[in-house]
Amino acid sequence: MKTKVWLRAGFMLGVALLSWLGLSADAWAQTDPLPSWNDGPTKKAIVEFVQATTDKTSSKFVPPEARIAAFDQDGTTWVSHPMYTQVVYCLERVAVLAKTKPELKSKEPFKTVLSGNQEAIAKLPMKDLEQILALTLSGMSVEEFKVEVKQWFETAKHPRWKRPYTELIYQPMLEVMQYLRANGYKTYFVTGGGQDFVRVYSEQVYGVPPEQVVGSMAGTKYGYAKDGTPMLTKEPKLLLNDDKAGKPEGIHLMIGRRPYAAFGNSNGDRQMLEYTGAGDGARLMMLVLHDDAQREYAYGPAQGLPDTKVGTFTQALYDEAQKKGWVVIRMKSDWKRIFAFEP
Amino acid sequence: MKTKVWLRAGFMLGVALLSWLGLSADAWAQTDPLPSWNDGPTKKAIVEFVQATTDKTSSKFVPPEARIAAFDQDGTTWVSHPMYTQVVYCLERVAVLAKTKPELKSKEPFKTVLSGNQEAIAKLPMKDLEQILALTLSGMSVEEFKVEVKQWFETAKHPRWKRPYTELIYQPMLEVMQYLRANGYKTYFVTGGGQDFVRVYSEQVYGVPPEQVVGSMAGTKYGYAKDGTPMLTKEPKLLLNDDKAGKPEGIHLMIGRRPYAAFGNSNGDRQMLEYTGAGDGARLMMLVLHDDAQREYAYGPAQGLPDTKVGTFTQALYDEAQKKGWVVIRMKSDWKRIFAFEP
Repeated sequence: MKTKVWLRAGFMLGVALLSWLGLSADAWAQTDPLPSWNDGPTKKAIVEFVQATTDKTSSKFVPPEARIAAFDQDGTTWVSHPMYTQVVYCLERVAVLAKTKPELKSKEPFKTVLSGNQEAIAKLPMKDLEQILALTLSGMSVEEFKVEVKQWFETAKHPRWKRPYTELIYQPMLEVMQYLRANGYKTYFVTGGGQDFVRVYSEQVYGVPPEQVVGSMAGTKYGYAKDGTPMLTKEPKLLLNDDKAGKPEGIHLMIGRRPYAAFGNSNGDRQMLEYTGAGDGARLMMLVLHDDAQREYAYGPAQGLPDTKVGTFTQALYDEAQKKGWVVIRMKSDWKRIFAFEP
Repeated sequence: MKTKVWLRAGFMLGVALLSWLGLSADAWAQTDPLPSWNDGPTKKAIVEFVQATTDKTSSKFVPPEARIAAFDQDGTTWVSHPMYTQVVYCLERVAVLAKTKPELKSKEPFKTVLSGNQEAIAKLPMKDLEQILALTLSGMSVEEFKVEVKQWFETAKHPRWKRPYTELIYQPMLEVMQYLRANGYKTYFVTGGGQDFVRVYSEQVYGVPPEQVVGSMAGTKYGYAKDGTPMLTKEPKLLLNDDKAGKPEGIHLMIGRRPYAAFGNSNGDRQMLEYTGAGDGARLMMLVLHDDAQREYAYGPAQGLPDTKVGTFTQALYDEAQKKGWVVIRMKSDWKRIFAFEP
């Protein structure tokens, strides 16, 4: 008799447990994974893609190891106006270096950079910019560089919002990254930005670990410090410019698999979206269109908006998107809020 | 009263469940994760490293996201004698190509390769080898290359064991990889072999996905097939020679983190082990010494064995290992069995 009661109790407990688990699962499913998105076809496209590729009974099912999603960074997951954040870093870094290297003050192009004359700085030719990049992004150990970038981010502020650059990430895109990861996707950055630069904050800010950052790649040189300690020194030698055709090339080099989803915002992302879309099965290609001058910026000839040169979204790209079924994300109407700090 | 019985039943069920889980955990812990290793200091070094770095109460604890282990391939996780497998592939591939390109038969260095004269082939200078690599490893799409390599592995056999090359992997090293992965480590290949070549079989054979293969890297070129389909074509352009100093450089490029464990077998792995060992906390550096002519091969001046030039383990490397506390794995005495097909 006692045994019977126990068995019954055990059974009932089991039922209770299952019912509780069931309720939890329901509650989970009913939680909106994309709360910063307005309802509509854009949000629906994301949710349907994730559901189809993770449902074992779907013909579009993608095995977990192949779930790769590629995100451009500048203009796609954070603000890139009025200037790419890494360019701001390089320019401001010249001033820091001039404190211990006063000779920079009288030497071009550093003299122009130190003058703060934005118009003159904007006109610097490519070979001058290369000198600035070489000065600020190479010559130090990879560990020293990491410290320099980290320290800069602690105090640097965006001129418009007066907030750290790492707060100017798009909350809706962060939700997409988190939603994809919660469904077994590995989220990668595929950015024109410097790989080592983005790696400094990508894990903390976006949850993207260093090994999942594909960026413009510069060489390093293995050697030994005076005390014999092995070290890697950053070299002014470009291995891959991770922009335009360099994006699918960088994806192949670093990942070796074709992504199932790709997110961009400019002509620099066209080839990455084409390459992603050329795979079979379900593929999701999306482009962020900046059409919200009030909450962020409005640019892109695709919409008759000004061409700011920083992250251009041309009419040709827009036409290709329409033709190939890529989804255009309209900031103004698709995003309920843009930044986490907004009410 | 009824409620009380239920509560008691629930409690007892909980106790039973916990005790069952506890037993399972014990049973798991008591299963030898390295059954192909003989007991001794080498095996002990591996187990102690894993235990220390995964025990939250240990001062040597490593957070899961930082658990990176790097493995050389040729001579470390599979047989590399009498010739590197990829070199065999390239030479045999020339014969396949000659069927549709008969002009190769009368053109050097392909004529020599097709002659089958091993002595003459071994004497080919570097510039001839480069021509052979360019012919067999570039000019096709990345997908075509994958198919070519896959097909070769289906029929190619090692001259000594008359078995597919993918069966000539060292069972003890596979166990180390699996043991590390079971403890939250990401296992990477860091090989002098071609990245795209190794990626073809690394997931199936070793459980190492393509994105965790760091190898010698060649460029690809993004373009379009005649029907407009985007494609990546393999280029005869070396981006990084993943050998010697190239190994830590490749690790930084592809992973962006310093490994906690590194496994090699030759002078080509020295810098990778130095770089790994220069990190703080617990680090495990190991070198496979081939001292078993009967079951595999015996070579390496370190032990007064012949220098076969393929994966040289010099006296200088041996001395550095002794000095720095790197662990030398002696095949003959440390490995109970070498291949999975052995009884």
